[in-house]
Amino acid sequence: MAFPSMKSAVLVDGVVLNGPTTDTRAGEKFVEEACRLIMEEVVLKATDVNEKVCEWRPPEQLKQLLDLEMRDAGEPHDRLLKLCRDVIHFSVKTNHPRFFNQLYAGLDYYSLVARFMTEALNPSVYTYEVSPVFVLVEEAVLKKMIEFIGWQEGDGIFNPGGSVSNMYAMNLARYKYWPDVKEKGLSGLPRLILFTSEECHYSVKKSASFLGIGTENVCFVETDGRGKMIPEELEKQVLKARKVGAAPFLVCATSGTTVLGSFDPLDEIADVCERHGLWLHVDASWGGSALMSRKHRQLLHGIHRANSVAWNPHKMLMAGIQCCALLVKGKSDLLKKCYSAKASYLFQQDKFYDVSYDTGDKSIQCSRRPDAFKFWMTWKALGTLGLEERVNRALALSRYLVEEIKKREGFKLLMENMPIFAFGTFLQASERWKRDQSSGKNLMWWPQPSRRGC
Amino acid sequence: MAFPSMKSAVLVDGVVLNGPTTDTRAGEKFVEEACRLIMEEVVLKATDVNEKVCEWRPPEQLKQLLDLEMRDAGEPHDRLLKLCRDVIHFSVKTNHPRFFNQLYAGLDYYSLVARFMTEALNPSVYTYEVSPVFVLVEEAVLKKMIEFIGWQEGDGIFNPGGSVSNMYAMNLARYKYWPDVKEKGLSGLPRLILFTSEECHYSVKKSASFLGIGTENVCFVETDGRGKMIPEELEKQVLKARKVGAAPFLVCATSGTTVLGSFDPLDEIADVCERHGLWLHVDASWGGSALMSRKHRQLLHGIHRANSVAWNPHKMLMAGIQCCALLVKGKSDLLKKCYSAKASYLFQQDKFYDVSYDTGDKSIQCSRRPDAFKFWMTWKALGTLGLEERVNRALALSRYLVEEIKKREGFKLLMENMPIFAFGTFLQASERWKRDQSSGKNLMWWPQPSRRGC
Repeated sequence: MAFPSMKSAVLVDGVVLNGPTTDTRAGEKFVEEACRLIMEEVVLKATDVNEKVCEWRPPEQLKQLLDLEMRDAGEPHDRLLKLCRDVIHFSVKTNHPRFFNQLYAGLDYYSLVARFMTEALNPSVYTYEVSPVFVLVEEAVLKKMIEFIGWQEGDGIFNPGGSVSNMYAMNLARYKYWPDVKEKGLSGLPRLILFTSEECHYSVKKSASFLGIGTENVCFVETDGRGKMIPEELEKQVLKARKVGAAPFLVCATSGTTVLGSFDPLDEIADVCERHGLWLHVDASWGGSALMSRKHRQLLHGIHRANSVAWNPHKMLMAGIQCCALLVKGKSDLLKKCYSAKASYLFQQDKFYDVSYDTGDKSIQCSRRPDAFKFWMTWKALGTLGLEERVNRALALSRYLVEEIKKREGFKLLMENMPIFAFGTFLQASERWKRDQSSGKNLMWWPQPSRRGC
Repeated sequence: MAFPSMKSAVLVDGVVLNGPTTDTRAGEKFVEEACRLIMEEVVLKATDVNEKVCEWRPPEQLKQLLDLEMRDAGEPHDRLLKLCRDVIHFSVKTNHPRFFNQLYAGLDYYSLVARFMTEALNPSVYTYEVSPVFVLVEEAVLKKMIEFIGWQEGDGIFNPGGSVSNMYAMNLARYKYWPDVKEKGLSGLPRLILFTSEECHYSVKKSASFLGIGTENVCFVETDGRGKMIPEELEKQVLKARKVGAAPFLVCATSGTTVLGSFDPLDEIADVCERHGLWLHVDASWGGSALMSRKHRQLLHGIHRANSVAWNPHKMLMAGIQCCALLVKGKSDLLKKCYSAKASYLFQQDKFYDVSYDTGDKSIQCSRRPDAFKFWMTWKALGTLGLEERVNRALALSRYLVEEIKKREGFKLLMENMPIFAFGTFLQASERWKRDQSSGKNLMWWPQPSRRGC
């Protein structure tokens, strides 16, 4: 389909088709220069403990400092590089050793390289034919994650976020019990009800709302003083729901709650689920990575009894945002049956390879990013033992922090002897974090001293 | 919170906390070397028309060629670089000038740089404090897209895919008419029903299923010979649904259908929606970019009357996967009201800046990628006029292709005089694409000659 190499212009609808479009030489040079800038300003400088975590500006002021406007004419490369520099300058350096504000932090060189590669290759993981390597990598990574959960067999898919994984699980559970829901919807069904702890992630409510179940049909089970769901309370709530004619179908336990870093007692919860025929989903988005550590994996004792698990290696394992798997127990093909739409333009059944590799039909997305690949690259580079060390180190660091808080004036430890310490939770500074005024550097980025959560 | 610079080891739980973790020097060197590889093998080589689009291997064979296994020990850098090389080698080169298989193609240098930047910075766009620049960039891009739709005011959010944008719209529409659905779910409501054309994207069915509405409650309206929804048929179906006691609430029109590239007549459909009080959502995931062209924007005539629009700049405008906006008409704050979960650990209301910039509370996701940024960078680099030219060129090229098909032996044109030509639809090769056997290069990657769709 190459254009004939003729000298006369091919003019269609006023467009010269065989003329040059982009100046590729200049474009390539721009990419090279920008890569150098990223290397210097982000990979090297933004990870330097002596640099600032953030050059903070309030919104209205930052708008004045950045040239945000999109105009009719394009901007030259030197101007674009200046813009790149500004964007980096005013962005929060989440790779900085003192970035503590969210559930992720730090720079992993291997996942970064994987991410650069996928951005350059720009694949979409729906069919094997267009994404052969990334389909196989996803399969390999899922298999390994399933092994760490302790299932004999399983299935899974990478999603844009733990919230979305929780939605997948919720929909899967209701499909399991009421397969007609896919075609008929909820209108003919009894009032579905699901259970989670008071300390669950807010996505459980969001999921219930989005899936048409409704937030009022999320029953928040009481937790103990350590933020763990009380199994006896769960059972009471299940019985109560049945009594009023509602249809309990799912328990969403949490392994690593957002605020307290608590791990629900999965074994006892699994007992309740078995007794009452409920789907057990474990939101291990944050805490799932503890499965990599022989020392800490007992925090998730009983997880092999779950029907589904959400686990985000982009958190404790630093795989880069986003890297989130939903994992499903067994080889029932439930994921495929529940999500398949059999789009004939994409998922033809008469291809010249095994179409079970066209994994996109298991997804709610059409275009899908190869998020498994960055985790795979890190795993390859560090090995299972390296990942284990990463987890052990993270948990040892928080234990160290707790001891330091006890010793330090102006800090008060709110809770002790937690199995794991969610960063920031136990830290309540009595005054704003002291900045190094002489150098003008904010050594630790924690603008709100009294916030709850991390 | 810096560790004291002491010489003795700080040992906590068997982990030496003040010992070195990663060899940063070696890590940085690895990133540098990998960047060089990506530059050579992807940015330069994979865009070269003389190279292959794909080094095709069937799944089982590719598994043998790639070293996919994750082991206990990590691999050295030279081995990892070899793996990177293999991954690139066996991946489909979607940037290749002859990659025609999906709804996206080609390399945009500017969006690529933006994507490298965001991967390196690893932000999550939920709150202004952690993502100041990207929150403002998203606001600026959404504002401009809203302007091109022709709305006075609007709101929006970037999502992981047009399918997800369609889900957002569907949920928003039902919330608009039945605000209780957020808390109470669908159980108390009448049977909701929505309308779309026979040629719609398969995500409409997926959305209906996921949201608990059910695929049977998607009414597929007949299209004309050109794949456009027939407004009179739509109206008949709406009346029919009302008659049987169902509750019509949404019409999903398509601007640029997946297979035929058709544009539904939005003005006439908007009339029907107005007459019957229905939410008009336009799935312009692919065709929305035609709004950038003064020559072709009439294809979407009437889009300003829509209540919501899905528009993916990652398709015709080459912004990189994924770059997908859901846009909502007016300043009603509907998106916020419908999606907000007010998570107290993240969206505190007592911050020291205007918390309306904490846009994450409008999303179904928690962690969210800064997808607007890559489009912004391309827009900055090319200007509105450059983007217009990109659209004009794409459409002129498909017109040229049609003329070529008519002339060429072994091809048959199935349909003529479409307003826009979805690639591949009109192309039905009577034999497998001829390969240049002498060089062993597949000059065009189109392994299945008789496929429908693109």
